[in-house]
Amino acid sequence: MPFQTSSEPARATWPTGLDSIAYGGDYNPEQWPEEVWHEDVRLMREAGVNLVSVGIFSWALLEPREGEHDFGWLDRLLDLLHDNGIRVDLGTPTASPPAWFFAAHPDARVVTRDGTVLGFGSRGMASPSHPAYRAAAVGIADALARRYGRHPAVALWHVHNEYGAPVSDDYSPASATAFRAWLQDRYGTLDTLNAAWGTTFWGQRYGEWAHVDVPALAPSVVNPAQRLDFARFTDHALRACFVAERDAIRAHSDVPVTTNFMTTNCPSTDLWAWAAEVDVVSNDHYLTAADRRGHVDLALAADLTRSLAGGKPWILMEHSTSAVNWQPRNVAKRAGETTRNALSHLGRGADAILFFQWRASRSGAEKFHSAMLPHAGTSSRVWREVRTLGADLGRLAEVQGSTVRADVAILWDWVSFWAQDLEWRPSVDLDHRERVLAYYDRLWRDGLTVDLVHPTADLSAYRLVVAPASYLLTAAAGDHLAAYVADGGTLVVSYFSGIVDEHDAVHPGGYGAPLRTALGLTVEEFLPLREGDTLAVAWDHDGVRTELAADVWADDLALEGADVVATYVDGPAAGLPAITRNRHGAGTGWYVSTRLGVDGLAPVLRAAYADAGLAPSGLPDEVEVVRRHGAVADYVVAVNHADQPVEIPADGTELLTGTAVSGSYKVPAGGVAVVREARRG
Amino acid sequence: MPFQTSSEPARATWPTGLDSIAYGGDYNPEQWPEEVWHEDVRLMREAGVNLVSVGIFSWALLEPREGEHDFGWLDRLLDLLHDNGIRVDLGTPTASPPAWFFAAHPDARVVTRDGTVLGFGSRGMASPSHPAYRAAAVGIADALARRYGRHPAVALWHVHNEYGAPVSDDYSPASATAFRAWLQDRYGTLDTLNAAWGTTFWGQRYGEWAHVDVPALAPSVVNPAQRLDFARFTDHALRACFVAERDAIRAHSDVPVTTNFMTTNCPSTDLWAWAAEVDVVSNDHYLTAADRRGHVDLALAADLTRSLAGGKPWILMEHSTSAVNWQPRNVAKRAGETTRNALSHLGRGADAILFFQWRASRSGAEKFHSAMLPHAGTSSRVWREVRTLGADLGRLAEVQGSTVRADVAILWDWVSFWAQDLEWRPSVDLDHRERVLAYYDRLWRDGLTVDLVHPTADLSAYRLVVAPASYLLTAAAGDHLAAYVADGGTLVVSYFSGIVDEHDAVHPGGYGAPLRTALGLTVEEFLPLREGDTLAVAWDHDGVRTELAADVWADDLALEGADVVATYVDGPAAGLPAITRNRHGAGTGWYVSTRLGVDGLAPVLRAAYADAGLAPSGLPDEVEVVRRHGAVADYVVAVNHADQPVEIPADGTELLTGTAVSGSYKVPAGGVAVVREARRG
Amino acid sequence: MPFQTSSEPARATWPTGLDSIAYGGDYNPEQWPEEVWHEDVRLMREAGVNLVSVGIFSWALLEPREGEHDFGWLDRLLDLLHDNGIRVDLGTPTASPPAWFFAAHPDARVVTRDGTVLGFGSRGMASPSHPAYRAAAVGIADALARRYGRHPAVALWHVHNEYGAPVSDDYSPASATAFRAWLQDRYGTLDTLNAAWGTTFWGQRYGEWAHVDVPALAPSVVNPAQRLDFARFTDHALRACFVAERDAIRAHSDVPVTTNFMTTNCPSTDLWAWAAEVDVVSNDHYLTAADRRGHVDLALAADLTRSLAGGKPWILMEHSTSAVNWQPRNVAKRAGETTRNALSHLGRGADAILFFQWRASRSGAEKFHSAMLPHAGTSSRVWREVRTLGADLGRLAEVQGSTVRADVAILWDWVSFWAQDLEWRPSVDLDHRERVLAYYDRLWRDGLTVDLVHPTADLSAYRLVVAPASYLLTAAAGDHLAAYVADGGTLVVSYFSGIVDEHDAVHPGGYGAPLRTALGLTVEEFLPLREGDTLAVAWDHDGVRTELAADVWADDLALEGADVVATYVDGPAAGLPAITRNRHGAGTGWYVSTRLGVDGLAPVLRAAYADAGLAPSGLPDEVEVVRRHGAVADYVVAVNHADQPVEIPADGTELLTGTAVSGSYKVPAGGVAVVREARRG
Repeated sequence: MPFQTSSEPARATWPTGLDSIAYGGDYNPEQWPEEVWHEDVRLMREAGVNLVSVGIFSWALLEPREGEHDFGWLDRLLDLLHDNGIRVDLGTPTASPPAWFFAAHPDARVVTRDGTVLGFGSRGMASPSHPAYRAAAVGIADALARRYGRHPAVALWHVHNEYGAPVSDDYSPASATAFRAWLQDRYGTLDTLNAAWGTTFWGQRYGEWAHVDVPALAPSVVNPAQRLDFARFTDHALRACFVAERDAIRAHSDVPVTTNFMTTNCPSTDLWAWAAEVDVVSNDHYLTAADRRGHVDLALAADLTRSLAGGKPWILMEHSTSAVNWQPRNVAKRAGETTRNALSHLGRGADAILFFQWRASRSGAEKFHSAMLPHAGTSSRVWREVRTLGADLGRLAEVQGSTVRADVAILWDWVSFWAQDLEWRPSVDLDHRERVLAYYDRLWRDGLTVDLVHPTADLSAYRLVVAPASYLLTAAAGDHLAAYVADGGTLVVSYFSGIVDEHDAVHPGGYGAPLRTALGLTVEEFLPLREGDTLAVAWDHDGVRTELAADVWADDLALEGADVVATYVDGPAAGLPAITRNRHGAGTGWYVSTRLGVDGLAPVLRAAYADAGLAPSGLPDEVEVVRRHGAVADYVVAVNHADQPVEIPADGTELLTGTAVSGSYKVPAGGVAVVREARRG
Repeated sequence: MPFQTSSEPARATWPTGLDSIAYGGDYNPEQWPEEVWHEDVRLMREAGVNLVSVGIFSWALLEPREGEHDFGWLDRLLDLLHDNGIRVDLGTPTASPPAWFFAAHPDARVVTRDGTVLGFGSRGMASPSHPAYRAAAVGIADALARRYGRHPAVALWHVHNEYGAPVSDDYSPASATAFRAWLQDRYGTLDTLNAAWGTTFWGQRYGEWAHVDVPALAPSVVNPAQRLDFARFTDHALRACFVAERDAIRAHSDVPVTTNFMTTNCPSTDLWAWAAEVDVVSNDHYLTAADRRGHVDLALAADLTRSLAGGKPWILMEHSTSAVNWQPRNVAKRAGETTRNALSHLGRGADAILFFQWRASRSGAEKFHSAMLPHAGTSSRVWREVRTLGADLGRLAEVQGSTVRADVAILWDWVSFWAQDLEWRPSVDLDHRERVLAYYDRLWRDGLTVDLVHPTADLSAYRLVVAPASYLLTAAAGDHLAAYVADGGTLVVSYFSGIVDEHDAVHPGGYGAPLRTALGLTVEEFLPLREGDTLAVAWDHDGVRTELAADVWADDLALEGADVVATYVDGPAAGLPAITRNRHGAGTGWYVSTRLGVDGLAPVLRAAYADAGLAPSGLPDEVEVVRRHGAVADYVVAVNHADQPVEIPADGTELLTGTAVSGSYKVPAGGVAVVREARRG
Repeated sequence: MPFQTSSEPARATWPTGLDSIAYGGDYNPEQWPEEVWHEDVRLMREAGVNLVSVGIFSWALLEPREGEHDFGWLDRLLDLLHDNGIRVDLGTPTASPPAWFFAAHPDARVVTRDGTVLGFGSRGMASPSHPAYRAAAVGIADALARRYGRHPAVALWHVHNEYGAPVSDDYSPASATAFRAWLQDRYGTLDTLNAAWGTTFWGQRYGEWAHVDVPALAPSVVNPAQRLDFARFTDHALRACFVAERDAIRAHSDVPVTTNFMTTNCPSTDLWAWAAEVDVVSNDHYLTAADRRGHVDLALAADLTRSLAGGKPWILMEHSTSAVNWQPRNVAKRAGETTRNALSHLGRGADAILFFQWRASRSGAEKFHSAMLPHAGTSSRVWREVRTLGADLGRLAEVQGSTVRADVAILWDWVSFWAQDLEWRPSVDLDHRERVLAYYDRLWRDGLTVDLVHPTADLSAYRLVVAPASYLLTAAAGDHLAAYVADGGTLVVSYFSGIVDEHDAVHPGGYGAPLRTALGLTVEEFLPLREGDTLAVAWDHDGVRTELAADVWADDLALEGADVVATYVDGPAAGLPAITRNRHGAGTGWYVSTRLGVDGLAPVLRAAYADAGLAPSGLPDEVEVVRRHGAVADYVVAVNHADQPVEIPADGTELLTGTAVSGSYKVPAGGVAVVREARRG
């Protein structure tokens, strides 16, 4: 049920009225008396803030009773911001319906898989499929668009907030009704549905549409194809909410419309589909405090956001100046870390650096979340760094609009992730995110810039394609990858890929059948390891034997043309092939059948780089360098995560300091640099 | 409320029309087009398959709408199998009612203890106590029996599937109504119930039958006697479902009726009672992948199944050719393991070796479960081993009908397990299964064959009886054990035995009072250890002091005649008796008051063997040898779990290879042997 | 909504008719035939029992049907006890309403936060806010008071049992209605509530009282101010139940009324408020078996109970002779431990030493709980020790009424604990109980006697006040602490103190603002550590550098006058101040910004003692000495937890042995002593 593509003229794809990197954050002034607003705006100007997001949770204020609107405070706020030259990203407040909505529509409350009805009092979300919610959401969006659609302060529309969080799946009766309608639209007949879901297994065949239900908790594991379709439906229901609000806004405003994605942290939205619906892509990203390599996860999120934006500049809609509040241990950022994080995003294509939030809340669930203006006020380290960053970004105005090119692509498909995350997979240690991040981290350390791509996307621009965990892969996608290899590409596939089709049914022809042509093999049997077990893989290369440590998984392979590159030393596949390489057409297809760590992947990817005509950057560990290509110059963005200075090769001008650079530039320990260089190719 | 014993003539106790070891598996051909069926049958013949189970989850196909039957496909299937000489185990599909059933009877859905209503979409199960379910189940069983009761293909009836899995307890209103009726039948008056449940404690006394309810989640721990009775009721409700279907079938068929037990994996059925209701005992067994000694658990399951069958041959209804799909890490079997598993079952009395399932499913929850014909097809290791095993079993036709004798019995009582598993026991480290398995493993390593017996069963055939965890033990059972000892038996009792009566009430006279006569002691106080704490037990024997490592538990004993064999070196009972031996009449009663591991149990059981006139086999570790006694010959079944060959003593003919054996036979590493010997005793 | 203070004359504050230390326990004879009662009473006299608690769970017996009373058995029981000189603590049985109550009022069942309705069959509790429960509870209390209010056996009324256990929070509709009424009373207007709760955050503003609800499970974290108020309301609802029963009793009886607190084990009651409502404070205490230093937790509980009692003697209503039954591993007490525990309580002000329970139950949930008369009967170690303890207490009659004085106070505020325990705090490793216990343990080891006090209590009697975890601290409380310091007091504050006000809103002026004056600093930023990370703090003192190990937490401090005493060596605050000392007026304010263990706290507190004019006792580790001050003599109560004898300084007479003591007394390993000394001060 794809949405209709509108026949309107092309729309603006960047917040209007901004001529440099955007800087700012969420601004929720309704928490303070209006006299505080004036201090806020003065400090915003001091910090170089030029864009703030307002109104995101203001439904209860804007519509205190159903149908009664109170826009006075927002009128005053927008005028104040406009008068001070601060552009506005205006939110629709539909992520948190008011108390009156739930009181009037108790059946619009979200129901969990085990039947718990979720109450009011937090950051609510109603059932995305409930007609009353859809109507109320479109109603407030329409009212806002009518009033502010042409307001000079408004640079951007921010629909809803983080669709899919904090809840996505809804097992309410309203959701069940909508799910059935969606299925009827998708399958047409019950016979088709029964075949797609394999309902003959365990006697689940449906004879009436009315008997088909949401996959609530059941005595045992629920049909995986049903659950996969419910994940698709959930994504569709949320996206339909967005589209409805967006269209209500577009009817009254030419300003571009976005909604803030959580590219790496919201498993319930298929953002390839969403990216096609927004005028400009924006993203929220927060470090995971427990992850000491969180900056690598940040880089992945930024690269994924850029990939969703089709390479166009994007908005970092939210990140934090220091600690967040919702993790088990909310580690504060240390001096320089906020700037490094911001520049990593910028280097990977962000032309807007925004935070949650401007001023720390005194009350509520997020009062321990850091802010641009913390509880400690303007005498604090955080405020000083916020002001410095604002000034730095001001020096980078010319970077705006430049783009990033990647030689390497990693496959990324939310639908496949949904499928793999269902129950009763061969091993609980199968973890697609872990595998993607391991391969990504290897490439990050090797200094190679990466795009994330859907398995069926055009791959012709990439010298190397990595498929770290491609459990669900259609036959067509397999053919597409084989063609990529045949045309000279280098493909690296890790285990548990190409297993099922779009209905989570095992491909005929054995595990990995869609990849048989590209890889020259199929998998005869999975050999998952017991918890904690490890094994070794031997790689004989140039007369030297290297043993790589591995764990979690091995395969019993059926080779059909692939060459054995490395062999299992021990474990359940002792003596059998572990890593293979297949020449196919003008390219090569690699297969890695076990879990290697980031170190163990080094020789494997080095060999694959050689096939692809690539090489590691050779830069010191923990320095991150990405090049943005502008219309008249290139910009080398360097972020030094190490605690000693590093030299990077560069020629031109370092923009933050104004230093002329010849041959190399020394980036301070924990510091950043942006060097304008002559434009390349 | 025991079921009426029928007055019919004796019924067949083995699938009809089979003249060798049965071989095959579950066959669910409704998942494929009918042309695949012909390939299936061809390959079955190639593999030596002679028995398949069909129709087990076919209710929705056989009765697509309530009361409308469609038997055409099953007619064709049975004819095809019959034409190819493959016998049929015909299932009743009542383990998974169709969608229409739940739509028509939403109140027949199972409700969990916390009130969650379990939905449709998995492997369903309706409330076993709901009248509509009983009626529908008997209805489809009756229809199948009328149509196929005399069909020449049908060798066996397979009622339902794994009663008690995946759910057993049901807290629905229908269950509550049936529970009250069952209680009224059991207790007659509320005064009797109040006394049995000890309702004066915590003020729970009932004044009306209508106030008695299922033991749903409550503010604190629910009355344990109520919960124990609810477990009894649940078992009864499930068994009543079986009996009703069985009787519907018997009305139209002389073919024997079974239902597949899960002897060691279904805690909710008291199989001593069930065994009396089936015509032939069958069992499903799956290895626990995380358990590196899973073959010992397998042997226990096989011995328990044989014990339930009263020593008669039994059917291994399901096991796996390789990995299962529902464990956290589904470890594949390695070369030879399937054959070893199959021969272990056979050695312990199985005359039918069947698998779940014939052909791997492409769709559904179990598509990653191994099969006789895996996704990789006939070019695979698994298929080759399946074919070899079929041929091997063909060479063992003469073993059919031979039986196993055991000198040792271990007490096994599901009702006691139910009671011990309730909340608020002295230590969460008390684990009856662990204790049973520890003693069983010791006996397994010592090469002694074991029966499992109910505490009140006839024990006269056994030289040694072990009570590893007999928490609930009636005074009568205690007297029975004392008489066994008095008559010359050797009894070994481990801690936390003889504590409560049939209502989970502590026996008057102190802990272990029912065992006072046999053991010459009671337990004054339990001394459970803190988590991770260990202690040592000193055993002075022939002038040598051995220290045995122990943990979890100690007792403060009140000796009344028992001799102290070993003493606590440290821990909460330092200096007090740890292991005792009591001469009573012509026998001896041993008591082991702490948790010894399999190694620590070695000297204890060696001493008990001496009392019992038994001796360990003296065979190498990890070779398993069981003798089956036939009408004209004995069969020594040897399974070598070690990775080097072992010599076993034997004289006669090894049947798989046809080798003449004189004095000893070398079983290859990981291999098996079956030696026909002259008949003993 | 404080309760009305009655204008009645002063009431008795100690169980009537007792002229020595009270000794006994819960007595639930309804579990046995009446002939057993006579054996019970004989054995009670043998053990020195002079007070028993009866009727605590007898509602179903006393009122077998609604409104129908059966007092015959209780009449006979009270007469029997009275005839034998055993005083009676008479319970109201309202902690466990009968089955008929829940059958008649199913909507009075407690509902959990996720909507689970809790059933009957355990130790029930109805919704404390349901009018039918209130009416029924007052009804049975009134009936008991009318019948037994002047009965000569009755020495004390025991209302309910352990209010708040096993459930406290109730999310039923009845609770929601009462919560709204309580809020209307508290806030008057919705505007006030909206401001207090900060409902502009996340768009939660209420426009109708009817929309305000209990904080049930929601899609994300529920408003913390709402949850904090719900905790207050829950406490109030439970307390209102107590007050209603108490008043019903007072109308017919002059005997004092108590309810048994669980001072350290019931987080849901604000016992500072409760203590004002009872005539005499009583407490239940059970060791946590897993805690090898459980005797320190016991001392804390006893000191807290005494503090609640305002220094007056109190009743140890329940403890155990040996193991309990509801912990994971119910470790038995070892020889002498019961006596040590009892004497620790007595030393800290208990004039009544009672157990749960007299005779071990054969049935029900608590049959494995130890008792004065265990399952093993009178031949047991436990019984012997019970008898000895009874005799010992008889020798201590003169101690009755003496009191304990403390130089040190630790702040203790349940409301602050409720607030800190809500979700989304900076670190899950923040644990107020752990911090209180660490500081308490340090003081315990240093031999200093401690009172627990509310932050706004009169502090003038204390030389040292410790605030180990004072998250919620009002501005007024901060001023109060500053005045205490200014007046010469020594204050030690640990991290995460003074953060929020009574609505869980961050204080303006930065973290710790209310303590700025006393401590000379605020906290600029929290620096919680990652899991498992540690750091070191360097303390330079007299030319010697000591490094103290710490973990969990660091602060980035903004000093405003405080001196740096110790500095972070590493970790997120490396180089910054870790421990500070501030001179303010005539006193000093210490701040400890990281988690030091009990050893690490030693030098810090030693320095604070010096400021306060205090010194450690200098006694050996693990001997506990507390002084009770009587009208004519002092009593030094010594408990030796070590396994060797220790000498304590003393002069006078050891009362248990009658030994004359001059200069010192040797307390045996694991033993106790009570030395009458000349009265001090």
